[in-house]
Amino acid sequence: MKIILIGAGNVATHLGKALKSAGMEILQVFSRTEESAKKLGEQLNVQFCSKWNEINQSADIYIFSIKDSVLEEAISHIYAPQAIYVHTAGSVSIDIFEKKVKNYGVVYPLQTFSKNKEINIQEVPFFIEASNKTTENIIKSIVGSISNQCYNLSSEKRMLMHLAAVFACNFSNYMYVLASEITSEAGIDFKTMLPLIKETADKVSYLSPEDAQTGPAIRKDEKTIKKHIDTLANKKHLQYIYRQLSESIEKMPEHK
Amino acid sequence: MKIILIGAGNVATHLGKALKSAGMEILQVFSRTEESAKKLGEQLNVQFCSKWNEINQSADIYIFSIKDSVLEEAISHIYAPQAIYVHTAGSVSIDIFEKKVKNYGVVYPLQTFSKNKEINIQEVPFFIEASNKTTENIIKSIVGSISNQCYNLSSEKRMLMHLAAVFACNFSNYMYVLASEITSEAGIDFKTMLPLIKETADKVSYLSPEDAQTGPAIRKDEKTIKKHIDTLANKKHLQYIYRQLSESIEKMPEHK
Repeated sequence: MKIILIGAGNVATHLGKALKSAGMEILQVFSRTEESAKKLGEQLNVQFCSKWNEINQSADIYIFSIKDSVLEEAISHIYAPQAIYVHTAGSVSIDIFEKKVKNYGVVYPLQTFSKNKEINIQEVPFFIEASNKTTENIIKSIVGSISNQCYNLSSEKRMLMHLAAVFACNFSNYMYVLASEITSEAGIDFKTMLPLIKETADKVSYLSPEDAQTGPAIRKDEKTIKKHIDTLANKKHLQYIYRQLSESIEKMPEHK
Repeated sequence: MKIILIGAGNVATHLGKALKSAGMEILQVFSRTEESAKKLGEQLNVQFCSKWNEINQSADIYIFSIKDSVLEEAISHIYAPQAIYVHTAGSVSIDIFEKKVKNYGVVYPLQTFSKNKEINIQEVPFFIEASNKTTENIIKSIVGSISNQCYNLSSEKRMLMHLAAVFACNFSNYMYVLASEITSEAGIDFKTMLPLIKETADKVSYLSPEDAQTGPAIRKDEKTIKKHIDTLANKKHLQYIYRQLSESIEKMPEHK
């Protein structure tokens, strides 16, 4: 199975390295940014290109791992009816391939990747979807070579998992951003927050997030909440978010 | 130095164990809940009581580690002018002791404690404050026996650190709560989120939270944001928070 990677960003880089390590044959790497194509091509020791018409059209699998906004354009540049087309996006339906090719699918890794940070990819959950059973089996065997966790999931439910990831990753990181604004104000290094951040993340591996919820809002400690809101009088965006999230946490029992 | 712990909750339990391990003499444990007093007393192999008038008035240090709302009442039950009074609260001023005793202070550990979960207390940052230099030195030597990280901090700035902890711990955990509502909806076990949660928390140890920020909002990917908001049409509280936090993240560069 000859694989071509369309994209050379964080996901493509980690996928490419893992597939290569698993003994898969990567034929070529494409990125619109020549430097990125070169960098990943050299890392994987494979051909690379940055012009659409230089993409080899004879591969068995094209993995589109690029921004959602250019996915449609990228697909239009490949003419390989024999191949399987796959994308890695959380919130793009499998139907994007519908009129282009017969065998297609999705491989969505639920993780945040940075180019220079090693990840244990065996632990990363992959949510997959395919246009037919044969394609599904091929995708499963490829994903199975790099991860222990492979789940079938519809496009609709995959979007929910992407949404859950926005909350658990993007929004929780934003809470760290806001915390770091406050530690600056206190003249204390943000690094003092790291043991707390790590422990908070660890806790939900043995308690449900609901049971792990602590703080003034869940115990309806209005006196402390008022002190905090008053303290944030000069930081309106922090005050606003503090208030909204505290109100929402106070209503937590009603959501059940 | 004979220590009495007023309170037997999560903080008192971890502090008590650490102080005991460091060779400090704990004279007695008090909790209004007899069962809690008994449990911690037995764990530490020291006297315990649950009636205010049973508290030994001859200790050298009283550590008040109880709910903010009962702190004032607890202080009023101790008549030990020779002793140092200390509380462990993030958002209560040191002045709460002002008219009660001469030597007093605060020892605020920046961590989330659960009774049955071991913590490496050596790594926990302690923010301390004292009514005078002699008391400060005594508090420092006690804290120094259990943690490598001890910082002087005023009541005002300690409240900021507590506020930062609410964002980094309570609010990020709430993001996990919301994520778990969504994974339930998708029929996927919340445990699939754990590698992502762990990696998100790890990232800020080598990138600033600002640089670690990813997701649709920071890249102003309005198409994906719209899809997500539409998907949450039947979950108004999730939709509301998604919208507020995304808008706030989009404005992140302006905060600097």
